[in-house]
Amino acid sequence: MRLSKLFFHTFKEAPAEADIISHQLLERGGYLRKVGKGLFIYTPLMWRVLKKISAIVREELDRAGCQEISMPLLHPAEIWRESGRWEAFTSEELLYTLKDREDHEYCLGPTHEEVVVNLISNWITSYKNLPLNLYQIGNKFRDEIRPRFGLMRAKEFLMKDGYSFSSSSEGMEEQYEVMRQAYNLIFKRLGLDFAIVEAHGGKIGKGKSEEFQVKAEIGEDVVMVAGDYASNVEAAVAIAPDYPFESTLKERKRIDTPNTTSIEALSAFTKIPPQQILKTMLYKLVFTDREEFVAIGIRGDRQVNELKVTTHFGAMEIVAANEDEIKKLTGSQAGFIGPIDLKLPFYADQTCQPMTNFTCAVNVVDIHDTNVNWERDIPRPAEFYDFLLAEEGDRCPHSPDTYHIQRGIEVGHIFNLGTLYTKKLNALFQDEKGQMQPFWMGTYGIGIGRTAAACVEQHHDEKGIIWPLAIAPFKVFITAVSTKNPDQVKAAEGIYEQLQKLGVEPLLDDRNERLGLKLKDSDLIGIPYKIIVGRAFDQEGKVEIESRTGEKTLLTPESLSSWAKELKI
Amino acid sequence: MRLSKLFFHTFKEAPAEADIISHQLLERGGYLRKVGKGLFIYTPLMWRVLKKISAIVREELDRAGCQEISMPLLHPAEIWRESGRWEAFTSEELLYTLKDREDHEYCLGPTHEEVVVNLISNWITSYKNLPLNLYQIGNKFRDEIRPRFGLMRAKEFLMKDGYSFSSSSEGMEEQYEVMRQAYNLIFKRLGLDFAIVEAHGGKIGKGKSEEFQVKAEIGEDVVMVAGDYASNVEAAVAIAPDYPFESTLKERKRIDTPNTTSIEALSAFTKIPPQQILKTMLYKLVFTDREEFVAIGIRGDRQVNELKVTTHFGAMEIVAANEDEIKKLTGSQAGFIGPIDLKLPFYADQTCQPMTNFTCAVNVVDIHDTNVNWERDIPRPAEFYDFLLAEEGDRCPHSPDTYHIQRGIEVGHIFNLGTLYTKKLNALFQDEKGQMQPFWMGTYGIGIGRTAAACVEQHHDEKGIIWPLAIAPFKVFITAVSTKNPDQVKAAEGIYEQLQKLGVEPLLDDRNERLGLKLKDSDLIGIPYKIIVGRAFDQEGKVEIESRTGEKTLLTPESLSSWAKELKI
Repeated sequence: MRLSKLFFHTFKEAPAEADIISHQLLERGGYLRKVGKGLFIYTPLMWRVLKKISAIVREELDRAGCQEISMPLLHPAEIWRESGRWEAFTSEELLYTLKDREDHEYCLGPTHEEVVVNLISNWITSYKNLPLNLYQIGNKFRDEIRPRFGLMRAKEFLMKDGYSFSSSSEGMEEQYEVMRQAYNLIFKRLGLDFAIVEAHGGKIGKGKSEEFQVKAEIGEDVVMVAGDYASNVEAAVAIAPDYPFESTLKERKRIDTPNTTSIEALSAFTKIPPQQILKTMLYKLVFTDREEFVAIGIRGDRQVNELKVTTHFGAMEIVAANEDEIKKLTGSQAGFIGPIDLKLPFYADQTCQPMTNFTCAVNVVDIHDTNVNWERDIPRPAEFYDFLLAEEGDRCPHSPDTYHIQRGIEVGHIFNLGTLYTKKLNALFQDEKGQMQPFWMGTYGIGIGRTAAACVEQHHDEKGIIWPLAIAPFKVFITAVSTKNPDQVKAAEGIYEQLQKLGVEPLLDDRNERLGLKLKDSDLIGIPYKIIVGRAFDQEGKVEIESRTGEKTLLTPESLSSWAKELKI
Repeated sequence: MRLSKLFFHTFKEAPAEADIISHQLLERGGYLRKVGKGLFIYTPLMWRVLKKISAIVREELDRAGCQEISMPLLHPAEIWRESGRWEAFTSEELLYTLKDREDHEYCLGPTHEEVVVNLISNWITSYKNLPLNLYQIGNKFRDEIRPRFGLMRAKEFLMKDGYSFSSSSEGMEEQYEVMRQAYNLIFKRLGLDFAIVEAHGGKIGKGKSEEFQVKAEIGEDVVMVAGDYASNVEAAVAIAPDYPFESTLKERKRIDTPNTTSIEALSAFTKIPPQQILKTMLYKLVFTDREEFVAIGIRGDRQVNELKVTTHFGAMEIVAANEDEIKKLTGSQAGFIGPIDLKLPFYADQTCQPMTNFTCAVNVVDIHDTNVNWERDIPRPAEFYDFLLAEEGDRCPHSPDTYHIQRGIEVGHIFNLGTLYTKKLNALFQDEKGQMQPFWMGTYGIGIGRTAAACVEQHHDEKGIIWPLAIAPFKVFITAVSTKNPDQVKAAEGIYEQLQKLGVEPLLDDRNERLGLKLKDSDLIGIPYKIIVGRAFDQEGKVEIESRTGEKTLLTPESLSSWAKELKI
């Protein structure tokens, strides 16, 4: 491509709203053009990168035995109602919904489990045609609460989504492993530094699931890492550091604690360490058919992992109780809810089990009890369970190391759904014994646009983007130093044609601009190699090659073919 | 690919709603799976075909100097309001509209003029960066009144849309010509029998425009063909056969014509030929800011081309006046509207100009006047203009031949928009003299899915689809006659591997089924060549090759490579 013909535009400044480096550089390099909040045009440069990432994804998935299809973006509401997800998604307003001229309801697909299950269950009747692994690459939609970070969190975004179907739990696990390997290869080929992280499936289900997290300071995800093991914070099983609770039980006392609505305030006022305070949280659990309130106790220095609560109770959604609900259910107010005389199901995190002589609220404003003990003063909770939000320094059951926090960008997710959806949607096949069974299903995603942005987060310098060769929009930038020197211009043109024939994808800067500006543009948009036809050419017939990371060589134009082959450009 | 692994399903019967052959065969061959009315999943077979068509489109467009981008499918309403098309499209309910969580309005893009003009006008400031020709391949949406014919008229469909920007009218014409050539090459490579047809732009504008129409009996479009010239019926300029009107003017008479609400009835009752009756139609023209009524006269044997009326008056929409409106405006009723004593603007088609001694209604029920003559009895209309709907046998101004009707499937459309949109959207560049000018814009579309369906309409027989080599999902089908004959099976496997290495895309039928069923499936899904390892192999070491159109040869497995190369498979 000749730069004079390329539709591109570089900018000195990124728009003010671009607050992470990848968004800034992609905007400055003219990769994106915003159409509306969270809606972007991918320019020729961006689209070349996205197509290259897609091609690598396709190659590895096809090699792994997957087959590409394409499903519509408009989904009839009925199939989402059947799976029970219409309510779940619309209640969070993440789903774009619309009606056609006949008043039928649709949503814009944020994911395609319902549609693909419908396809499979109509066409696959026997275990003989399993396993099956289908995928597509296309746009997805989410009515984001706060679209931001450019391609990281957009309203419309390019994704690969895939779905596997197996005839047994073991078959499902095999497919999961196949996809895990394929993803591993894909992200390696894309030159990313990433971790495979145990994950909590959130809304999708509660089977085994892992995320592919690209390490990045600006990552929105908190990853807990202990040695070789990593988990996203929602899924992390963690053991809080022990606290030396006394073994001699003391006498329970009621004390005045005015305005101590937080653990901090209570601890400061009473001089009791937070570890010796039992905190009680009141939650509303939303199920498809009902709502329930539950109280969760936790050691005062720690936080409840709300997703763990949701999953444990099989709820669709969790909401902290509001002032009115607290008043109605406990007669008290936030800050003074406690397990004593509580007319609600009470559960506690495992951190509460060893507690002795602890302090807790008693559902009376400005009052707490101290030296409270299980059984003696209050019954043990219905269950001690893991509701703990992991923190740095916690012990990890999978590693001798304690956890530390890393931030990550989730670029991939693999998920063993088991028979969750296929049972709901009554998607059955005949097994070897002639029995009807629900399919074992897996779901697998890769954010194509987000992967490109994550790549920029990891590969850039003060001058701009440094694309890995595999996905650079062009691999080699060529220019003559002086556009008035016909020999240089001719040589640059010759090299351009030579490399084009080799399939190297060169970009010839044939603009009548000064060299500095040209090289700046090349560095900003991140072309891996620059070939400069200048003084060395005039003097000794050699061109200067500079890699985007600064290595320089001089070569004759004739030797460029072998140079390109050697570097696998 | 091994057929045992391929996700596919063939059916003996097509669903009842599939009423054209392409829809039937694509359903029977398992290319499509309906998700809802006008919404389809493209299975691995279909997606392979669509990807191949897309690849050919990309190749030719890139060669023609176009650049690929990708624009969002969600369009903020504001940019459509700016161009004035929000009202036009929503009034016809063709636009899917929706709101986000912040109550901002969007539509699902049926076309991207607004979005691309927004992009261009922000980035291109000088004539030096023109011309520019951008395209994308992606899904489009139309809330069709009657989704049908499978991929032909769906709610969501795969399209290539492209947009060119030039600095002058001549530059625009050049781009138009470049695209015309590229389209010509594309449809030729796709093996289609098509015509380039002069077109009426409909809603899009009134510059020069042509359609690429694939000839097919089931085509929804009526194409008027005269010699080498073709035009869609909406755009066709036609000269109705002359009628020998008398030159001596007769005495005007008022006659009773009870219940003669149609030309047929009136002619039958009065014995006056339709050619001597002046028919008057009453229309409501809808403009962006107002509505107007107009009466159009036409010779009684012919029909008004409503699109010509809309364009002539620059209206957004045209609607036949209803009973109430007729009553209010003329005091009369349908069938008895005439130019006499009419208090409305009256225009007439050119067919009316030579009329003498004609009969027409007088806005009184059950009454007509005969022997009416222009000027003597009624003033000439405001204008005689071409409002004629062309018919078979009409004369054509571009050819000595008269028109005959052909039916076609519109697979492509190219359009010189001039400065219609860029003026509205205030999209300007600086010309050579430093003056600000609106861009000259062209718009170009190819229905990718519709092209695939059109291809099936033209290439099929009673056994199934006959894909042209260029877009067949697999090019060669291979099978052993007896799955119990290990030599045959081994040879089939060997040929499969050999062809795979050549990049031929073979499909190995390794199913344990009888030969007849296998060959039937291959013919139904339209694979161009079958290689059968059977008796000839056992006896003389040769395999049978049969083309989809019936030619048979015997070859040794060793010579298959040169066979494949020769046929450019």
